[in-house]
Amino acid sequence: MIIIGEKINGAIPSTAKAIAERDAEFIIDLVRKQEAAGADYLDVCAGTTPEEEKEALLWLVDVVQSVATKPICIDSPDPKMLVEVFPKLQKPGLINSISLEGEKCDILLPLLQANPEWGVVALCCDNSGVAESADTKVENAFKLIGKAAEYGITPDRMHIDPLVLALSAVGDSALQFTEAIRRIKEKYPTVHVTAALSNISFGLPVRKLVNCNFLTLCMAAGLDSVIADPVNRDVYSTLLTVEALLNRDRLCRKYTAAYRKGKIGPPKN
Amino acid sequence: MIIIGEKINGAIPSTAKAIAERDAEFIIDLVRKQEAAGADYLDVCAGTTPEEEKEALLWLVDVVQSVATKPICIDSPDPKMLVEVFPKLQKPGLINSISLEGEKCDILLPLLQANPEWGVVALCCDNSGVAESADTKVENAFKLIGKAAEYGITPDRMHIDPLVLALSAVGDSALQFTEAIRRIKEKYPTVHVTAALSNISFGLPVRKLVNCNFLTLCMAAGLDSVIADPVNRDVYSTLLTVEALLNRDRLCRKYTAAYRKGKIGPPKN
Repeated sequence: MIIIGEKINGAIPSTAKAIAERDAEFIIDLVRKQEAAGADYLDVCAGTTPEEEKEALLWLVDVVQSVATKPICIDSPDPKMLVEVFPKLQKPGLINSISLEGEKCDILLPLLQANPEWGVVALCCDNSGVAESADTKVENAFKLIGKAAEYGITPDRMHIDPLVLALSAVGDSALQFTEAIRRIKEKYPTVHVTAALSNISFGLPVRKLVNCNFLTLCMAAGLDSVIADPVNRDVYSTLLTVEALLNRDRLCRKYTAAYRKGKIGPPKN
Repeated sequence: MIIIGEKINGAIPSTAKAIAERDAEFIIDLVRKQEAAGADYLDVCAGTTPEEEKEALLWLVDVVQSVATKPICIDSPDPKMLVEVFPKLQKPGLINSISLEGEKCDILLPLLQANPEWGVVALCCDNSGVAESADTKVENAFKLIGKAAEYGITPDRMHIDPLVLALSAVGDSALQFTEAIRRIKEKYPTVHVTAALSNISFGLPVRKLVNCNFLTLCMAAGLDSVIADPVNRDVYSTLLTVEALLNRDRLCRKYTAAYRKGKIGPPKN
């Protein structure tokens, strides 16, 4: 499983405060904790107003790169902003994101073509909105893979996000999502399929129960990348347990080692 | 999901002690707690030496029937014992169990034929032992369904248990088990498939993580019956959450009601 650490995002109130106050220590702490917990990429998103975004994003990138050992997943709703900030990034990472909306592909795919070590998060939405059914999610995924191919970008550089809808609003959200994963991986075994898990539990109590069980279902369906908080003990425990159950952890060694280090199970004193 | 409450079983040390001391109050408490937690059947197994089994089982059945509103799943490794105790049972329930071992089918299928309101747990093992691969599990399941059909017993009266092996010993245990569930349900949509969950985590730390995530995977594969402890908050939370995720809980009503009653999520004071 590829873990994209989600904590450095201005959509999270505590991170928004740190960005507003230019509190570098807070951000550095998020880098260190997510890396220690196993993050493979660090998502970096300003989440500010468009006017403030460039300055905030450049500051964030500087702070993160001052300590990070893992690459950045550079995240903005504005493709032009991603192009502007891109030259500051020292290490190949992920661009977050393209979709079938507006000019995203036209602006960002040439950048990816020119930088073959970079990958991209590709969202299954278009100008009509977020795909709800597995059929539409899969159709959008295939269109995105096709467009990327026109620029010589192979599926293994892409993290397709079929987009999770809230279960409280869309009863078959998890079923459509997992079906989409299965069909995308069946046709393109080398493409990564990712998810921003926590959208599933919007509006429900005990969100961690819904998030973790949804992660389990998605991993069984073929999800191999996730946008999540690796510092969260419940998410991390689920990841390791399901890896063992899916026979991807020989003799349950990673699972038992994590237990001995106190990283899963009841917290030790 | 059909829940077969597993607590009244002499294989559990505290229950064994209550049986040895003929502590009726302890057993009655297990009946009430499991029923309140949503058990559909109450497994009753003496777990004593063969010499002591009949007396213990008859005592247990009497105690359980003095208060239970749910039917008994009468459980013994000895098919003749099940035939002997059967006349004492006041309400149609489940016989636990038949398998392809020895004379189990020959002894118990006629009893089931004569009592059409009863169901049966059918284990996927034969004289050579427990089936490890999905292929053998499925083959045994189909043989059991075929033998039952000879006695006019329809698949909907059967709870097939493909038999869970410990993940610590058999790395693909969960994968083979879930594959078996899928194939059994595909061929016989009306048959129930059940599991004694906790075997999966034998020898591993933080067993509840392994048990609950395994339950999630099994439910997604089609498991519709489970031999488990409904009083266990983690198991119960998983059951309700996955039912919601699989779109079997309209508008997440059961899930949110359970939260309001304090039955899932962090315990309330």
